[in-house]
Amino acid sequence: MSSTWKNNISFTVFGESHGAAIGVCIDDLPPGESIDFDKVCEFMARRAPKKSVTSTHRSEKDHPTIVSGYYNGKTTGTPLCAFIANTDQHSNDYSNLSKLARPGHADYTGALRYRGFNDFRGGGHFSGRLTAPLCFAGAIAAQILEKRGIYVGAHIAEIHGIKDKNFDPINTDKDMIREIRQKEFPVIIDVQGNEMVKEIDRARKDKDSVGGIVECIAINVPAGIGSPMFDGLENSIAQLIFGIPAVKGLEFGAGFDTVMMTGSENNDEFYVNDKGHVVTRTNNHGGILGGISSGMPITLRVAFKPTPSISKPQETVDYSAIKNETLEIKGRHDPCVVPRAVPCVEAAVNIALLNHMLDYPNF
Amino acid sequence: MSSTWKNNISFTVFGESHGAAIGVCIDDLPPGESIDFDKVCEFMARRAPKKSVTSTHRSEKDHPTIVSGYYNGKTTGTPLCAFIANTDQHSNDYSNLSKLARPGHADYTGALRYRGFNDFRGGGHFSGRLTAPLCFAGAIAAQILEKRGIYVGAHIAEIHGIKDKNFDPINTDKDMIREIRQKEFPVIIDVQGNEMVKEIDRARKDKDSVGGIVECIAINVPAGIGSPMFDGLENSIAQLIFGIPAVKGLEFGAGFDTVMMTGSENNDEFYVNDKGHVVTRTNNHGGILGGISSGMPITLRVAFKPTPSISKPQETVDYSAIKNETLEIKGRHDPCVVPRAVPCVEAAVNIALLNHMLDYPNF
Amino acid sequence: MSSTWKNNISFTVFGESHGAAIGVCIDDLPPGESIDFDKVCEFMARRAPKKSVTSTHRSEKDHPTIVSGYYNGKTTGTPLCAFIANTDQHSNDYSNLSKLARPGHADYTGALRYRGFNDFRGGGHFSGRLTAPLCFAGAIAAQILEKRGIYVGAHIAEIHGIKDKNFDPINTDKDMIREIRQKEFPVIIDVQGNEMVKEIDRARKDKDSVGGIVECIAINVPAGIGSPMFDGLENSIAQLIFGIPAVKGLEFGAGFDTVMMTGSENNDEFYVNDKGHVVTRTNNHGGILGGISSGMPITLRVAFKPTPSISKPQETVDYSAIKNETLEIKGRHDPCVVPRAVPCVEAAVNIALLNHMLDYPNF
Amino acid sequence: MSSTWKNNISFTVFGESHGAAIGVCIDDLPPGESIDFDKVCEFMARRAPKKSVTSTHRSEKDHPTIVSGYYNGKTTGTPLCAFIANTDQHSNDYSNLSKLARPGHADYTGALRYRGFNDFRGGGHFSGRLTAPLCFAGAIAAQILEKRGIYVGAHIAEIHGIKDKNFDPINTDKDMIREIRQKEFPVIIDVQGNEMVKEIDRARKDKDSVGGIVECIAINVPAGIGSPMFDGLENSIAQLIFGIPAVKGLEFGAGFDTVMMTGSENNDEFYVNDKGHVVTRTNNHGGILGGISSGMPITLRVAFKPTPSISKPQETVDYSAIKNETLEIKGRHDPCVVPRAVPCVEAAVNIALLNHMLDYPNF
Repeated sequence: MSSTWKNNISFTVFGESHGAAIGVCIDDLPPGESIDFDKVCEFMARRAPKKSVTSTHRSEKDHPTIVSGYYNGKTTGTPLCAFIANTDQHSNDYSNLSKLARPGHADYTGALRYRGFNDFRGGGHFSGRLTAPLCFAGAIAAQILEKRGIYVGAHIAEIHGIKDKNFDPINTDKDMIREIRQKEFPVIIDVQGNEMVKEIDRARKDKDSVGGIVECIAINVPAGIGSPMFDGLENSIAQLIFGIPAVKGLEFGAGFDTVMMTGSENNDEFYVNDKGHVVTRTNNHGGILGGISSGMPITLRVAFKPTPSISKPQETVDYSAIKNETLEIKGRHDPCVVPRAVPCVEAAVNIALLNHMLDYPNF
Repeated sequence: MSSTWKNNISFTVFGESHGAAIGVCIDDLPPGESIDFDKVCEFMARRAPKKSVTSTHRSEKDHPTIVSGYYNGKTTGTPLCAFIANTDQHSNDYSNLSKLARPGHADYTGALRYRGFNDFRGGGHFSGRLTAPLCFAGAIAAQILEKRGIYVGAHIAEIHGIKDKNFDPINTDKDMIREIRQKEFPVIIDVQGNEMVKEIDRARKDKDSVGGIVECIAINVPAGIGSPMFDGLENSIAQLIFGIPAVKGLEFGAGFDTVMMTGSENNDEFYVNDKGHVVTRTNNHGGILGGISSGMPITLRVAFKPTPSISKPQETVDYSAIKNETLEIKGRHDPCVVPRAVPCVEAAVNIALLNHMLDYPNF
Repeated sequence: MSSTWKNNISFTVFGESHGAAIGVCIDDLPPGESIDFDKVCEFMARRAPKKSVTSTHRSEKDHPTIVSGYYNGKTTGTPLCAFIANTDQHSNDYSNLSKLARPGHADYTGALRYRGFNDFRGGGHFSGRLTAPLCFAGAIAAQILEKRGIYVGAHIAEIHGIKDKNFDPINTDKDMIREIRQKEFPVIIDVQGNEMVKEIDRARKDKDSVGGIVECIAINVPAGIGSPMFDGLENSIAQLIFGIPAVKGLEFGAGFDTVMMTGSENNDEFYVNDKGHVVTRTNNHGGILGGISSGMPITLRVAFKPTPSISKPQETVDYSAIKNETLEIKGRHDPCVVPRAVPCVEAAVNIALLNHMLDYPNF
Repeated sequence: MSSTWKNNISFTVFGESHGAAIGVCIDDLPPGESIDFDKVCEFMARRAPKKSVTSTHRSEKDHPTIVSGYYNGKTTGTPLCAFIANTDQHSNDYSNLSKLARPGHADYTGALRYRGFNDFRGGGHFSGRLTAPLCFAGAIAAQILEKRGIYVGAHIAEIHGIKDKNFDPINTDKDMIREIRQKEFPVIIDVQGNEMVKEIDRARKDKDSVGGIVECIAINVPAGIGSPMFDGLENSIAQLIFGIPAVKGLEFGAGFDTVMMTGSENNDEFYVNDKGHVVTRTNNHGGILGGISSGMPITLRVAFKPTPSISKPQETVDYSAIKNETLEIKGRHDPCVVPRAVPCVEAAVNIALLNHMLDYPNF
């Protein structure tokens, strides 16, 4: 378990922040799927830290190398393993963290779990850097799904109280998804994006950080995909989404807002549209009923806490000596991971959907 | 997959609302654990519909029969299978639903998923009744955990805008958990509970329904339990929680509220307490960092949508004929599942925790 | 794990020899498959002990009761759970075995594995009786496969040195499989069967027992089913076959005999037959290459040790007191399980094949 | 599934014979285990083809590179991924095989399974070369087990009718295992080994090949390891052993020979030895009863067919054009894989044992 997801598709994310390489090994991909390697790199680039106002100085060159399961530009169906070399590790930056538990990080819990033997440098296997292989896997899944017309898009829905508008839960199309994907700062309303950038900048100046919400939509998922109980679409998506660092909450459709509705307000009435398809007039259910797709767009929102790495001094403990200490994290830190989390959420949803689509009779 | 959860513990929930029986088969329970059958029934009784203001008239006698894996009052370690006979099925009540997709239910998606062959009567395998075996499994897990001092409690945190106070995320003890468990209407502040009951009653009179939030806490979970990425505590809990019907959202610790905090506000500083233990001053992280328990109480909140079964007429489709129809659900319906969902949430958390505790060296 | 098999299909075999019931819970069966319940009972009857020369006096009425996943004579696709009540347990027969490890049985190893908490009566969960639910599951799988033209047959190939002829590995057809299935004593050459019966009778008179070999064939399995490495047809079949008590060996195709061949003798040359199909002239490979079906009949042979329950006095230990004792097993015992093992082997192969067939594009 | 084994330990073997690299990603290894990298390489060297009489000319430098899960000479507990670059591929040697199904190989079945998209060069993912990562994983497992006193040894028991003596199933100790491990040609009786080498040489001169049997023993496995039914020691070992190419049969303990014994001959009587341990006088059961270790040495024998790659002309088909052809495999080929299979069998057994040992209370 742990870093292996086991379902119709299985994959293991491996590596540590300061080890030789990170990567992913994906088993049971369908054979014969063309993969455009440049598009994979584009997907991954959206996750990589940029040398811009919203990011750290660490320049990651997340160039994946596929070593298996890929032949003549297509998946072979055998395990596809890709690694990303860690070329720019700056181990020194983290040297004083060796025994101090960074608040909000997994330094302390990871040390307990692995009895002190894990590679703690830079967060080790718990580092946000490990989302790069997740995005690689998601980019592969996305290309396979897009050939079937299924598109997954995401945007920054909120940063520290500043909100973007939501995706239209009925009429979002692939062009809108693609348009946001091209943006440097992925929001629907750019003026709101500008306010968010300012808010992030303010946090940086305060040696602090902010969190936010990523909204995600998946369109053209055929009705009838998924399963009841523990292997439904929500379950799979949830299991993967909570694998992304800093996620604190997840809701589907109207989510927590349904608490303020009555049943008659929340229920999405079915009707037969002019194409003869069964659809719903509203989409509070977020495209999933009983774990199974309804044919309506799948919508979800993911809450990310503020980046725990902040420059302000913090009280903490030395977890090897079990004594109180003060921690001051040196170097520049990313005051908001939410922009980089956008492709991570897409990746998780793409993988979950492809996984269930493999059960689909006409896949 | 689907109705089977596969991990250190595996279990399958089986049955349909109007079949001969429902039940659960649990594999890999530890051997030699005393199980007090009366306490199991008490746990399950909290989930059963009551003939009170807050529930339907269907009188379910959810008396489980254990047929294997239990000998001389103890678990044997081999699969423990229990079934609950369906004695009071009222199939007639649902007869006009046979082809009409109840909005908010899985009738339509289930029919597609199973190509029309599923037993749709009363929701079949998608019925809320299937939470009875989940509660059975949770009650077993709870007894095993409580012997190790780990207690899981839950309460109604909100019904349609009326709020209870939250659990104290630092100092909740087992007596408080037990006290709420005894209550007919499980809230911390009873006057708020009374308001909630009124709100539910109002919904019933309106032939409508309301949803709410269940808050759950787990105390005395040792630090270091869980794993990174896809098999952490959040992942397992999420996978099980989204197996409960009507769940639309899940958050851990400060959850979606972290979006309004800065990193310095949200980070929980560590310190060594007077017993020499590493603890945090606040508990916004909800007892889990990197998928692994920190030793602080684990806290989570689960959003339940309003019961989709309402008596008001609703527009929908006949999914066999693909034509528009009006649906009027006859009989009395439970206008709020939240009270009954409280033990279901506890069950899911107990199972997830026991699952991970089995990796604990000194279990 | 343990009593749960997890793959495209998952199932858990539950129960103890002297508990209330034994049974099986099968998840992820395809929906809409007609199941003839009488045929299931016929399949299971071939496994049940008969009051004839070749078996014990215990009269098991292995009548399964399906409680879920089956509606209007068809599978629903949701978990199918079936119980078989234990009605005739004769606990007294086993009373003196409570602390004595029967040689060749799992009494001692089971007690260690479950730290003394397992229900040891009559072998408990390790009893050969637990092959009844396996046969139930196999009977379901067989009916689903036979509708696709795939037939699995088995016969007694050898009892204590007395040999039947083998299935023709190229030309066996379904009529031959059906013919053997009808026989009281399932062999191809009945005169050899008569010798085997005499040999079994001789063993009984000697208060002893004998073992043998079951040969199994599966015809009309389409080419291309299975996977390389750890989830190939051999791997799945092996994992299930070694779940049948008393199995000591397994070989596919020419098996151990290939050791006496050269490559040029053993290699099965391919050719295009007059129907335009790719086939092999010989079938030493047993229908599987690289874990994947070749389209030729799948053949395997399973070695069963002599029944360990014998009436002769045996030296052993009291495993609770850790002291030497002499054991004399009372009552009449089945001196040869091989006839009853025939449907068990078929069951395992049917389940493994159905599991892999679910990946087949046109299933 | 397919190339991923999922249990307490999970691992995926990836790569193709002529791709960039092959390797293995192992999840859930225990943390803090010292791994001597040189010893890993020694283990793997036993599998590598040698430029001696018994092997091909391909000089494989199977030097693994560990990129994750290994820090300061110890396992970290997070996924351990290792690569082996493919440096010496000689693609040309195989060029005329592109469309001809080599008899006894998975060319045809693999092409069907992967709909023609697999990398078929040199057998691709089905190549015997993929046993190198298996041996890597086995070498890691062996080191962890040997620290607990558990040793797994194997030798060539038979080549084309020429037999070595068997391991003593009661008294084999680690020194004997180590002694065989050092031998260039791993047999117990060297004069028999010399005859085997001659037999292999004879096969080469005949442009043919021969098979054989590998016997394996595991000593000091504590009693009580394993589980009943589908996750017992036999099941796990079988699932892994049948992942090694060319395996046609597997038997435990007295295996197929038990067919010639009576119950009283085959049953291994228990007694309390002078150290107060429960042991058996004989070991026909091969150290496993009911899927669980008895504390006696675990013994098994694995049949390998003659190498299918032979230089003699063979009739076969062009599986793309579906027409008959004659195949003449160029280049020198290994006329017997059995010597190289010895560490592969050890690897499979080590992995299966470590997997089950992780359940052991005092591991």
